Amino acid sequence: MSDGPSGKLSYASAGVDLDAAENSKQRIKSHVESTLTAGARGVFGGFGGMFRVPEGMKKPLLVSSADGVGTKIKMAIEADRHDTIGHCLVNHCVNDILVQGAKPLFFLDYVAFGKLIPSVVEGIVAGVAAGCRENGASLLGGETAEMPGVYTPPDYDLAGFIVGAVEEDEVITTAGVQDGDVLVGLASTGLHTNGYSLARRIISERLQLGPHDPYPEAGGKSVADVMLAVHRSYLPILGQALGSVHAMAHITGGGIPGNLDRALPPHLDAVVELSSWEIPSVFRVLEEAGQVDRPEMYRAFNMGVGMIVMTDTAGARKLRDLATQSGVDNWIVGHTRPGTGRVHLV
Amino acid sequence: MSDGPSGKLSYASAGVDLDAAENSKQRIKSHVESTLTAGARGVFGGFGGMFRVPEGMKKPLLVSSADGVGTKIKMAIEADRHDTIGHCLVNHCVNDILVQGAKPLFFLDYVAFGKLIPSVVEGIVAGVAAGCRENGASLLGGETAEMPGVYTPPDYDLAGFIVGAVEEDEVITTAGVQDGDVLVGLASTGLHTNGYSLARRIISERLQLGPHDPYPEAGGKSVADVMLAVHRSYLPILGQALGSVHAMAHITGGGIPGNLDRALPPHLDAVVELSSWEIPSVFRVLEEAGQVDRPEMYRAFNMGVGMIVMTDTAGARKLRDLATQSGVDNWIVGHTRPGTGRVHLV
Repeated sequence: MSDGPSGKLSYASAGVDLDAAENSKQRIKSHVESTLTAGARGVFGGFGGMFRVPEGMKKPLLVSSADGVGTKIKMAIEADRHDTIGHCLVNHCVNDILVQGAKPLFFLDYVAFGKLIPSVVEGIVAGVAAGCRENGASLLGGETAEMPGVYTPPDYDLAGFIVGAVEEDEVITTAGVQDGDVLVGLASTGLHTNGYSLARRIISERLQLGPHDPYPEAGGKSVADVMLAVHRSYLPILGQALGSVHAMAHITGGGIPGNLDRALPPHLDAVVELSSWEIPSVFRVLEEAGQVDRPEMYRAFNMGVGMIVMTDTAGARKLRDLATQSGVDNWIVGHTRPGTGRVHLV
Repeated sequence: MSDGPSGKLSYASAGVDLDAAENSKQRIKSHVESTLTAGARGVFGGFGGMFRVPEGMKKPLLVSSADGVGTKIKMAIEADRHDTIGHCLVNHCVNDILVQGAKPLFFLDYVAFGKLIPSVVEGIVAGVAAGCRENGASLLGGETAEMPGVYTPPDYDLAGFIVGAVEEDEVITTAGVQDGDVLVGLASTGLHTNGYSLARRIISERLQLGPHDPYPEAGGKSVADVMLAVHRSYLPILGQALGSVHAMAHITGGGIPGNLDRALPPHLDAVVELSSWEIPSVFRVLEEAGQVDRPEMYRAFNMGVGMIVMTDTAGARKLRDLATQSGVDNWIVGHTRPGTGRVHLV
């Protein structure tokens, strides 16, 4: 029947390296187990991870989100430093459900390689596990795939999936936002996970820097140090004070103008005073080197503010105290006023 | 500051095409909405999808799983046919949690492109939505990422995450399996989502066929028709009879020997009689053309059996009647006997 070349085709050589898969499994086991909370059930080795719905809750709503880390992953690959992006991914997902008032229950990941490298898998999962521990989420499982022909070694991709819970009558919506609310901005740690396609182009084409070169105005930190800084989770600060929050916006792709509007009711506008915080040097360096327009900078990057919380004056004082105690810079960055659900950067 | 070439860098040209993203969003909206079940809350436009924990359940355990479709995705890309792999992905995940007794609540997807093509996104999500409707799962959300430099157009990847629920005292474990249990095999629709790296090599190198050529012994069906057949969900059959199931194994990567052992308690072996069903021609064609050893065929492929259920004689009769009524071929493929948790193919 065969009209092609003869000889046997082997399963392993067709791209699925079973030894590497087993090696990876052994390497990640302790990382996974380090994350397990009281709700987790029979995780390792089963087909699907199990989690008990929290018993103390009256009417729990499950809140879920899926995400990746975008082209930040290319920075990790180029720098051969794989243990922070998993942490970024978890924190990103935690923030995404936090804006609805939900706290994490569990997390799953998907990692796909052209050629599976067990030490890289371990680095990635170690980062995911660190993020899970920071946020009290159980790492319930995941999938590690080897896909020759889709990914060119050493490239890989990473996606994550979070499930959290919130009481149905404590869901945070835009309905709680009032005219005259204060906008509290909480500092980011850098680019978080957005704007990397543009940033990487500026760094390689304009600044002509490699991952291990010093980043300009960064006190000796390398490009990789600055660009792979872990996306901040705001759960440690905001989780203690969700009752004071009227609404909040996680500043991701689209920046402040592309995210803050989703936290506004249709009858209010938000005014963001751009002079109220200092743009961190990491962004100024990119702006100058790339000669990027200022409005485009605010669309591509968080510009130093990773989360904006709408609250009243007393709530703002409380949140700012909590942030300051956690060592996180914070500012009153604006206010709400009657309008049509629009964001004004002034 | 810039020591590279001068001129402005634009956000859009850096790889994030906002028009394509908006176009994709509009295209997938109706597909997503077609899946929503009673538990879904405020899905489209929010940061995270919400789902109400089923109220009738006493002690619900959430069961979750993450997966991809492996290199089956390359077959979809090469054939430029994108509306079945999403369905495959959902059905694969449904089967993975079904083996623990769980029924689906909701699903999320992650799709990453080198260059986002709205019509392809729509095809993928249409397939995911079809799978969700078939299995009563709400498509609660997802992420569509454009990652130039990781994926080479037209390549993309697709991952999915499912959450289902089962009563804590109805979880299916290996503890229910008895000495002398019957093994019922339920027919697959083809390769499902495993063995594609090997199959694609055989098809291109040995058979030298393109995606639109007729597949041998397939009654005129093309390579794409055969290779992109939708992974079967066994929920419509088994969901009605979970009480009769002692344990079950979803036959995925590793085939029968690599999956059936996970459904066995440590004191029992499973004997699988290979003559009890006829190997479908799709596998025989691959075996002959690739000159693949028979044991390797059973490790790489499901060989026609997508799910194996362990049950007693009465349960077997009931399950087989249900399968036959659904038009799904089924066989008694073996039995359990005292042993050490091993699988014997005889």
